[in-house]
Amino acid sequence: MTVFSPATAADREVRTPLPVLGRDVSVPLVTGGEVTYAALDYAASAPALQRVWDDVAAYAPYYGSVHRGAGYLSQLSTDLFEQSRATVAEFLGCRPDDEVIFTRSTTDSLNLLAAALPAGTQIFVFETEHHASLLPWARGEDARVTWLPAPRTPEQAVAQLDVALHGAPKGPKLVCVTGASNVTGEIWPVRKLAAAAHRHGARIVLDAAQLVPHHAVDIAALDVDWVAFSGHKLYAPFGAGVLAGRPDWLREAEPYLAGGGATRKVTRTADGGLDVVWHEAVAARHEAGSPNVIGAYAIASACRALSEAGFDRLVARERQLLAELREGLAALPEVRVLSLFGADSARVGVLSFVVQGWNSSHFAAALSAEYGIGVRDGLFCAHPLVRTLLDSEPDEPGECGAPDAAPGERSLNAIRVSFGAGTPDEHIARFLAAVTTLVQDGARWNYRTENGRCVPARD
Amino acid sequence: MTVFSPATAADREVRTPLPVLGRDVSVPLVTGGEVTYAALDYAASAPALQRVWDDVAAYAPYYGSVHRGAGYLSQLSTDLFEQSRATVAEFLGCRPDDEVIFTRSTTDSLNLLAAALPAGTQIFVFETEHHASLLPWARGEDARVTWLPAPRTPEQAVAQLDVALHGAPKGPKLVCVTGASNVTGEIWPVRKLAAAAHRHGARIVLDAAQLVPHHAVDIAALDVDWVAFSGHKLYAPFGAGVLAGRPDWLREAEPYLAGGGATRKVTRTADGGLDVVWHEAVAARHEAGSPNVIGAYAIASACRALSEAGFDRLVARERQLLAELREGLAALPEVRVLSLFGADSARVGVLSFVVQGWNSSHFAAALSAEYGIGVRDGLFCAHPLVRTLLDSEPDEPGECGAPDAAPGERSLNAIRVSFGAGTPDEHIARFLAAVTTLVQDGARWNYRTENGRCVPARD
Repeated sequence: MTVFSPATAADREVRTPLPVLGRDVSVPLVTGGEVTYAALDYAASAPALQRVWDDVAAYAPYYGSVHRGAGYLSQLSTDLFEQSRATVAEFLGCRPDDEVIFTRSTTDSLNLLAAALPAGTQIFVFETEHHASLLPWARGEDARVTWLPAPRTPEQAVAQLDVALHGAPKGPKLVCVTGASNVTGEIWPVRKLAAAAHRHGARIVLDAAQLVPHHAVDIAALDVDWVAFSGHKLYAPFGAGVLAGRPDWLREAEPYLAGGGATRKVTRTADGGLDVVWHEAVAARHEAGSPNVIGAYAIASACRALSEAGFDRLVARERQLLAELREGLAALPEVRVLSLFGADSARVGVLSFVVQGWNSSHFAAALSAEYGIGVRDGLFCAHPLVRTLLDSEPDEPGECGAPDAAPGERSLNAIRVSFGAGTPDEHIARFLAAVTTLVQDGARWNYRTENGRCVPARD
Repeated sequence: MTVFSPATAADREVRTPLPVLGRDVSVPLVTGGEVTYAALDYAASAPALQRVWDDVAAYAPYYGSVHRGAGYLSQLSTDLFEQSRATVAEFLGCRPDDEVIFTRSTTDSLNLLAAALPAGTQIFVFETEHHASLLPWARGEDARVTWLPAPRTPEQAVAQLDVALHGAPKGPKLVCVTGASNVTGEIWPVRKLAAAAHRHGARIVLDAAQLVPHHAVDIAALDVDWVAFSGHKLYAPFGAGVLAGRPDWLREAEPYLAGGGATRKVTRTADGGLDVVWHEAVAARHEAGSPNVIGAYAIASACRALSEAGFDRLVARERQLLAELREGLAALPEVRVLSLFGADSARVGVLSFVVQGWNSSHFAAALSAEYGIGVRDGLFCAHPLVRTLLDSEPDEPGECGAPDAAPGERSLNAIRVSFGAGTPDEHIARFLAAVTTLVQDGARWNYRTENGRCVPARD
């Protein structure tokens, strides 16, 4: 009997670092030869866990159309999809009434919630957020968004929110806050912000894109109303994301997309129109179109893998690597690590910095070309925050998402290094050695911007 | 040197049927033993082409964060993503100015276009469409949608549209039409409808979800303004879809999602607000959030595989299988095949029918449980069309997307059989033999609805 059954914990040996795809991939160096690639851009997209890949590969031959399909594989796939939802709910510590909606990404999840707000909802969000949590709320002419200035301590963040909510008019309110900054890696005081929000009758959504890969997130313990995250940062890069939490606003909202799956009944009316009855079940209502079964299953597989590996263990190991990383960078006076909350703040494995006398894009290009290390340069889709941290002006270059590196020598962009459960110690050691050599001895090649990409140049 | 390079046509042997995942999967029969699964629900979701899977598997270790990532794999992944866009454009015969946007599905693509329409756009759509092309246009208070009644010939469809557009007030107009019906498989006169639309200054979007897996679609030759389709119906079930076509309306529209990637510059304003400059490049503007690289690459791989296999050859083979299927069903007077345009109309490998004296859900359940054949029953997210074809009333059961089979004996739902490039002759032969046996001798088990699913029952 060859019918698919998902592997169980007993079938797996848990190793640290967790094995990821690409761990043996070699890349060429501009200086000759090749080296194992060091993926240190987890905060943008993490490599797939080997286990996630294995689970997807084992399931793929059993993939079938979900929902009304009458065939064996359709029913197996429908069950797998709904079990994936339950796995995610368990992973997030969801309350009994919470719903899990599969979206395409964190950005999509927050746009969905923004589209589902009751009329007149006032939104409170710190200007330090990623654009995905900064911008969806300001759409539509009746948007009422308060962008709070960058706090300099976690306590100040709570106090600022408290004041802002205290002075706000009556009516529905939503606070949106990141769990861990995608720029500094600093952890935000989510539980205290949630308490402040609820004290004033506001709700709160947690952008957990950067937190969930690094820390157990318990929606009930944090007492947040919603959590949003992406599969591709959680070692499951198959085009799915999650919005989980309170059902009421979502049940009352217009369906996110109009289409099949979200409809209960569609009939012509006598006047030539259409009468559409939408599903009230929250997931069906907001998941129109054929669901991304593989994407959802991959996220569930990652949730299981991280839980079974023991989140405490993963966090402790990551903290150790982060300490080594910060210690190594602190020894270089030319390197300035960006921080909102100061040196003692709690952080995940995400860290941004600038190097005196270096264009950040050139520095990042040299790390890649000469050392096989993949980091990121730019403003990290958090323009107001990075400009605050860099003390740069908004009319200077440095874009988000666009391949347009600044050619000057000043730090208008930053460099971000980020890692996670699949990172071997050697990657951090190699990174520190490379940064030290670049700072002390310079790059071996020159770098210039060509077609929007920073490339090695002989001249 | 282990760096990834995509396989080329020369590496591949093209066989017919094209090898798909799951071709050797066996499923249990309620009557004992097991049998190779016959996936005949391609119109909902097709199995992945083996080649698509192989391409994804070969790439997966090289997956990296796209766009601003400075590392080797980030740049490789960015290039692969943009090459995938170019491959899709070539596959669709796009004009030089056309843009390809990666979405999550056809539903998402059409919702994106609906959100991008100029103010006051009048929409013309036949009531016979799938809900994904029927419903997105009616959102918002100023929506101006004309739902045209079901035509009974392709010529009538063109004439109806002509009349409706002729009588419409001035202003921007959009026609939305399916390429092939997801219920009857009948091919719509897209080129003539496009000519009618353009004659009256209207634009036209082609819902090619059911056409693109079965026929070469040439956007320039059909002279349609946009094409939308889904990866999961094109043998690439990794959560991505496509909207391709004219850039102007999309460039002028608000970004589909608010978030990173879509922003050029975000700055605080003196009054405490935010000034957001969005990308004008159409794809960046409407693809906020990290793109689904694997999903896009999978679609591109499917496009290449179908092109290299020779679409003419695939179409000819499918037409032969369809002729056998229709001939076999025509020999059974108890079977009524649903058709809008009559027996002689051009069709793809999608066919719906009802069986006299049978509840369609029970019939579909028997095909699965006793013969290992996976079809679909329901209203196929095209309620007005299926009710028209069944002559049933809108207040009778039969839902879309919801597992709620009607327990009666009348045909309130239909059964749909659909196939494609991966279907071996044996699946069609087995299906016909099974239908014949069920019609003539009945099922061996009873079936009843339990928890919304139709299951075999001893009693």
